[in-house]
Amino acid sequence: MLTENRTTTKDMKIWQKNIDVNKDIETFTVGKDRELDLQMAAFDVLGSLAHVEMLESIGLLTADELAQIQKELKNIYAEIADGKFVIEDTVEDVHSQVEWLLTQRIGEAGKKIHSGRSRNDQVLVDLKLYFRSCIEEMVGNTNVLFEQLIALSNMHAAKLLPGYTHLQIAMPSSFGLWFGAYAESLVDDMELMLAAWKICNKNPLGSAAGYGSSFPLNRTMTTQLLGFERLNYNVVYAQMGRGKTERILAQAMSSVAASLAKMAMDVCLFINQNFGFISFPDELTTGSSIMPHKKNPDVFELIRSRCNKIQALPNEIAMMITNLPSGYHRDLQLLKENLFPAITSLNECLEMTTFMLQNISVKDNILEDKKYAYLFSVEVVNELALNGTPFREAYKIVGESIDNGTFAPGKAVNHTHEGSIGNLCNNEIEVMMEEILSQFKFEKTHSAIAALLA
Amino acid sequence: MLTENRTTTKDMKIWQKNIDVNKDIETFTVGKDRELDLQMAAFDVLGSLAHVEMLESIGLLTADELAQIQKELKNIYAEIADGKFVIEDTVEDVHSQVEWLLTQRIGEAGKKIHSGRSRNDQVLVDLKLYFRSCIEEMVGNTNVLFEQLIALSNMHAAKLLPGYTHLQIAMPSSFGLWFGAYAESLVDDMELMLAAWKICNKNPLGSAAGYGSSFPLNRTMTTQLLGFERLNYNVVYAQMGRGKTERILAQAMSSVAASLAKMAMDVCLFINQNFGFISFPDELTTGSSIMPHKKNPDVFELIRSRCNKIQALPNEIAMMITNLPSGYHRDLQLLKENLFPAITSLNECLEMTTFMLQNISVKDNILEDKKYAYLFSVEVVNELALNGTPFREAYKIVGESIDNGTFAPGKAVNHTHEGSIGNLCNNEIEVMMEEILSQFKFEKTHSAIAALLA
Amino acid sequence: MLTENRTTTKDMKIWQKNIDVNKDIETFTVGKDRELDLQMAAFDVLGSLAHVEMLESIGLLTADELAQIQKELKNIYAEIADGKFVIEDTVEDVHSQVEWLLTQRIGEAGKKIHSGRSRNDQVLVDLKLYFRSCIEEMVGNTNVLFEQLIALSNMHAAKLLPGYTHLQIAMPSSFGLWFGAYAESLVDDMELMLAAWKICNKNPLGSAAGYGSSFPLNRTMTTQLLGFERLNYNVVYAQMGRGKTERILAQAMSSVAASLAKMAMDVCLFINQNFGFISFPDELTTGSSIMPHKKNPDVFELIRSRCNKIQALPNEIAMMITNLPSGYHRDLQLLKENLFPAITSLNECLEMTTFMLQNISVKDNILEDKKYAYLFSVEVVNELALNGTPFREAYKIVGESIDNGTFAPGKAVNHTHEGSIGNLCNNEIEVMMEEILSQFKFEKTHSAIAALLA
Amino acid sequence: MLTENRTTTKDMKIWQKNIDVNKDIETFTVGKDRELDLQMAAFDVLGSLAHVEMLESIGLLTADELAQIQKELKNIYAEIADGKFVIEDTVEDVHSQVEWLLTQRIGEAGKKIHSGRSRNDQVLVDLKLYFRSCIEEMVGNTNVLFEQLIALSNMHAAKLLPGYTHLQIAMPSSFGLWFGAYAESLVDDMELMLAAWKICNKNPLGSAAGYGSSFPLNRTMTTQLLGFERLNYNVVYAQMGRGKTERILAQAMSSVAASLAKMAMDVCLFINQNFGFISFPDELTTGSSIMPHKKNPDVFELIRSRCNKIQALPNEIAMMITNLPSGYHRDLQLLKENLFPAITSLNECLEMTTFMLQNISVKDNILEDKKYAYLFSVEVVNELALNGTPFREAYKIVGESIDNGTFAPGKAVNHTHEGSIGNLCNNEIEVMMEEILSQFKFEKTHSAIAALLA
Repeated sequence: MLTENRTTTKDMKIWQKNIDVNKDIETFTVGKDRELDLQMAAFDVLGSLAHVEMLESIGLLTADELAQIQKELKNIYAEIADGKFVIEDTVEDVHSQVEWLLTQRIGEAGKKIHSGRSRNDQVLVDLKLYFRSCIEEMVGNTNVLFEQLIALSNMHAAKLLPGYTHLQIAMPSSFGLWFGAYAESLVDDMELMLAAWKICNKNPLGSAAGYGSSFPLNRTMTTQLLGFERLNYNVVYAQMGRGKTERILAQAMSSVAASLAKMAMDVCLFINQNFGFISFPDELTTGSSIMPHKKNPDVFELIRSRCNKIQALPNEIAMMITNLPSGYHRDLQLLKENLFPAITSLNECLEMTTFMLQNISVKDNILEDKKYAYLFSVEVVNELALNGTPFREAYKIVGESIDNGTFAPGKAVNHTHEGSIGNLCNNEIEVMMEEILSQFKFEKTHSAIAALLA
Repeated sequence: MLTENRTTTKDMKIWQKNIDVNKDIETFTVGKDRELDLQMAAFDVLGSLAHVEMLESIGLLTADELAQIQKELKNIYAEIADGKFVIEDTVEDVHSQVEWLLTQRIGEAGKKIHSGRSRNDQVLVDLKLYFRSCIEEMVGNTNVLFEQLIALSNMHAAKLLPGYTHLQIAMPSSFGLWFGAYAESLVDDMELMLAAWKICNKNPLGSAAGYGSSFPLNRTMTTQLLGFERLNYNVVYAQMGRGKTERILAQAMSSVAASLAKMAMDVCLFINQNFGFISFPDELTTGSSIMPHKKNPDVFELIRSRCNKIQALPNEIAMMITNLPSGYHRDLQLLKENLFPAITSLNECLEMTTFMLQNISVKDNILEDKKYAYLFSVEVVNELALNGTPFREAYKIVGESIDNGTFAPGKAVNHTHEGSIGNLCNNEIEVMMEEILSQFKFEKTHSAIAALLA
Repeated sequence: MLTENRTTTKDMKIWQKNIDVNKDIETFTVGKDRELDLQMAAFDVLGSLAHVEMLESIGLLTADELAQIQKELKNIYAEIADGKFVIEDTVEDVHSQVEWLLTQRIGEAGKKIHSGRSRNDQVLVDLKLYFRSCIEEMVGNTNVLFEQLIALSNMHAAKLLPGYTHLQIAMPSSFGLWFGAYAESLVDDMELMLAAWKICNKNPLGSAAGYGSSFPLNRTMTTQLLGFERLNYNVVYAQMGRGKTERILAQAMSSVAASLAKMAMDVCLFINQNFGFISFPDELTTGSSIMPHKKNPDVFELIRSRCNKIQALPNEIAMMITNLPSGYHRDLQLLKENLFPAITSLNECLEMTTFMLQNISVKDNILEDKKYAYLFSVEVVNELALNGTPFREAYKIVGESIDNGTFAPGKAVNHTHEGSIGNLCNNEIEVMMEEILSQFKFEKTHSAIAALLA
Repeated sequence: MLTENRTTTKDMKIWQKNIDVNKDIETFTVGKDRELDLQMAAFDVLGSLAHVEMLESIGLLTADELAQIQKELKNIYAEIADGKFVIEDTVEDVHSQVEWLLTQRIGEAGKKIHSGRSRNDQVLVDLKLYFRSCIEEMVGNTNVLFEQLIALSNMHAAKLLPGYTHLQIAMPSSFGLWFGAYAESLVDDMELMLAAWKICNKNPLGSAAGYGSSFPLNRTMTTQLLGFERLNYNVVYAQMGRGKTERILAQAMSSVAASLAKMAMDVCLFINQNFGFISFPDELTTGSSIMPHKKNPDVFELIRSRCNKIQALPNEIAMMITNLPSGYHRDLQLLKENLFPAITSLNECLEMTTFMLQNISVKDNILEDKKYAYLFSVEVVNELALNGTPFREAYKIVGESIDNGTFAPGKAVNHTHEGSIGNLCNNEIEVMMEEILSQFKFEKTHSAIAALLA
């Protein structure tokens, strides 16, 4: 018999038939749970703290038992925070480890925390709490990068770049536009992250094995205790959220990742010697003493690669859950292996992009090179048109001056409309970001958690 | 020379060099644009109406020219609405067709609508307007299905079903829970759709070829005229939104699709004779006179298949745009081929699911079958526990009664907590849906469009 | 009742219950079958020709009936070849149309062709025959492109290019290497195509609805008649091949597509003015009279985009069939919508790449530009080493000459080993291609089909 | 400066500029290389053994140096085989570790092994050798499972099962067919694996950094020494094979994975109590003492999930390499993180499926249940038809007997054609497998490796 009726003690397996579990099978089924579950440990304790407070309120625990359990759960929480918590080899996952510790330390009362709860809804609530925490960290890192990009955009607002269409030299652009574009990209990415947050911020606890419980649970109470905005009401849907929540979070992450990967691609192009628009200090690139021009942008190549991997993640999750009928399936366990490292990786990519951009150098006077002269032809046509020359006539004049080699444009760019070189609207972009970020209301979850642990 | 400097007239190609375009190449590059662009025609006219009103306000059109153009654009809009508009074979896309008609009818003034605008931002704004309209339709169809599911959940609230975990008979469930779960699933799906809406509801017009314009455009004005909530400020980002917007919309659609596909899988299982929980009228299934029990659920199989295809769409889009540097690339044109038919398909799946569910029959007394007796074992243990028997003792008692064949559970289910069989919380779920739907504010876009066309 | 017991006549639906099929449902379920099935029409007739010859051999048709049917099937085949065959709106698919025509023209005998056959194995064999034909066309187009690439590699063998690593200027390369690399890439792609061919070239006919038949069919005979290499023996596996065959073919196509897309990316980069290594005639690029340097590589951008879409196809197919239990599901019908247009698209991309490369111009003396001087530093180090200077010493000498500005390398490149600039081994690559192509044995299928139609 | 000119000693970094590498950056760029590279260590040594033998043959090493190096490389190989080899924290990858050990132990000669070789082609050849070894293991495990399936098919040939279409009861099937179908599925999967093998079995060594070398390397010699079938001739293509080889191998693996996942889905359905066709011993399923019928098929759920993850792998790889121009990019390093664990996982899934099937129990007399009676209606119609009743008449007779409740079919199934219940053709399927497996010629690579190590 495998793992459904997982025991809360190591010595006493009352629910298990007396049949030895095949060792290979155990290894195969436990998989990486011990390693990955460590990341959920603190949240498992929080979920239990809320659950037991509720159990006491409906008479399934005495006030004494509650006090005992709370005290010891807080101890375990502290141990987790101190890095002293481990999942032992004889224990299959974080939930069993916490229950075993509790029972070791306070005896029979420790076993009662499983009343009115299944492993299924326990994992569900742990994941939601963990994802809330991850989202907060990703949003924070995104915002730091956002501010860095806005700062660079403002700092280099006047420095011109060639703008490409079809990867052909086309129109004047600027570093102000280039940095600012990625800042604004992150704003839209946060809309998806907000959607993921709202979906994560609903309480599945109390859905038991996916069909609810005959105990008179108070799910509204655990919702408030854990700082969730709402319940996943329908218990069948609460279970259905497993996999779906992961896919949606991965979709939001893929949006941030796509922004970073695109910027990394630009960087690899712009640092290439045929472009030569930007550079980084030697210690942040790979070089060679006999190829002194070589400055390999390894960090950005790896950001690009990691972020493209993250872009493939929602599809991977979908492939693993598609066409599974409703109800819990063990398949879902493996989603942790995909998503947890991706969250870490995205945070590292956000931090590393910020760090690299803190060290970026931007070349001056790029457009002085004569190969960029034709960038200005549209400008000149427009200027003639604005001054009264019919558009088609203006077009012809400029075309002829180019044909006979007399085209010598002024290289001043006078773009004034919203979002253009001369009017970047970075303030407006910052306002958009602030408005989105204010909707997460992280502080509400903080105060709930603080109260639980008080 | 190909298509960048696309002409607005058929007879006079002033921007083209006198070189014959290779016919095969034209066919290859135009692709399915003529067919797909028809869906954007009305929105192309709306974008032009806003653009010319703005052009007049900054002195690039006279009041007379504006009046002429507006009158004729509204005529074209009416022709589109009447199904009389076609994109001719000698014209490569909708934009050229509209401009050609305009120039045919009002002469030189018609050509001026292209001032301060590029084909790039024209497509961008057309797509945003089109996607807004598509989202509104998808949200509407989702809501109809949602109400159908809630109605069925309420109607069949008392009818029990076996609940499965690991696809093994596990706990009592109900049709109330089953229908309600998919209703609540659609609520979360609408969170993603709302994120997609917010991202679509920003104005890219005025970004020109992706680097802005030297004309003193008033982008705030076109934003208001078209009923957009905000601008895509940064013009480089406005262009970067192409592909990204499509991917995000596809991600939102994939979430709805995943809900439908999962329900379709359940239906195919539940209509299977080994389960036999539900049925549909003969005319809605495929049968056979010599296999009278055969009721093939073709409609749901096709819904499942279509929706799984839609689930693969965000990945397809990502694969097509990944690692493209910033700036316009012709690659983006092909995204229409993926996304437009998927939108139609999802709407049809939503409608068809609703239609089929209007005709569903639900079997009574399913749990009377003795193979479902053990479903109630947890209930009995819990009941003993609630009445004071220690949990482990209760567990043992029930286990023994099963072992010696005396287990005869009452089959009443008394689940009372939020979201459980006896307390579905469908009202609360409806409130959640209403709150999300109210954030779309479709009426704001309607009144803007109505004013433009007035 | 829907479509399983599809009728072979329009007037007489003996297998249908007298219930009106809901029109919307019919539209939804028929989907694009009428359009897509046209591509399979000729193969449907071939499958029937083999089937009836076998039926006569086991006594289920008389010699007379066989002769009648064969004559008329060949007529229909000729009509298909002449483009005169249509699938009427009242008929749901190609199989019904052929059967209906046959029955119209020769009466009762026409109905007998369905004995010992189900719609399921009929579609399976049609698809296999169709895919064989498609593979032959794709292989042919690939080989034409391959020869073009080899010719260009040989023609431009001596023209040097900078070679990049990390997109940084690194080592001397050449057009000989560049063109030749893509030629050799196509060789490996053909290994996958050969695997797809072998899997397609097995006969599923006789598997009936996926569980075989009580008729004493001779499947070995139809296998030989249709020129298949082998049978899909196990009838359950024959049915399981639906979807799997499509995915494998798509995987082989994705490999060719990846080669084309990568080359298209290189082309877009090399035609960019910062690189400027290659060019195409004006009529094959998009230009602008006021931006004379602008030569947009639209064709290659679209090849890249189409091929990246094809790269996403195997995943799309997998998403649609994953987690379906064994046995036929209607879901499979939709795979035609994905795969058939992708085959056409890949053939067009192959043809268009060949056409464009026939017109490519390659720049001379690229490495004369001083930014490429350091390309040669490794060469000089190696030369010193070969002439006896210890490697580390050589390295130091070159590093110092670069540091003090005296580095002035000869720009001759003397690479002699297999596959290097001076020894491209294009002959060996051609031999590899020939060896793979010879394994397809297309002529064997041709003679079988010719015999069937004789 | 980062990692391109990676040093071969820890104490002496002659190619590095004197700039401290940022520690975080090193951690970010090294990633999981130390852990993953261990799996390539033996192959790195083999590649070096071939390389140095060739270097000596062209005069770049003396016979003495060669002997010294060979002796020590074989020592290191033995240490790797004994599990004594580690990659130290101060060393960034396996290549550096081997070179450092060598130099420590034999001095200056150790440094010469890098002549005429770049890190790029060294990784390429290591990967090819590693993949060859992995393919051999996967093929071996596949064949063991294949034989198990054939044995089960033969053993249970006479036991009938309902066959489903549209997941509706349709026709008689059998366990002989069911097991045999998955055996034949693995045969086709091996066609793709063979294609992957052929592509892996080509020698990239000598391509240096992707542009060849000015040393007079003998690549044909290293090809023979390492037992490769051929060269990757073109050096630019040799480098282009990175990523492409991984994608193709992943595609072949995805085909095996799809077969396993589909069978796992069938198992989960067939063990469900509503079907109840198969069972496993208690110790191989999860159960519950109060739900004695519950036998959760966790192992198969996890096989399904793992294999669906592997099905998503080719797409993930494609997403990471798509639109990268030719030439090495650091992005490629991360492919190891995706592919290496997937190989291990697939091998485990193959072994675990075999193990579980060794313990499967198959229910007798399933079709006795009256809900399966209509399965036989087609049989009876065919029997009447074979005995001379016109088909339509036979159909009518059976339909009427069903309608008036007199239908009482004999339940013998007499299917005789190739691949049907009564004629499984398992021998023919085994012959197909043998023919494919014989084409791998693993022994040729074994003898080459043995000679290298002699």
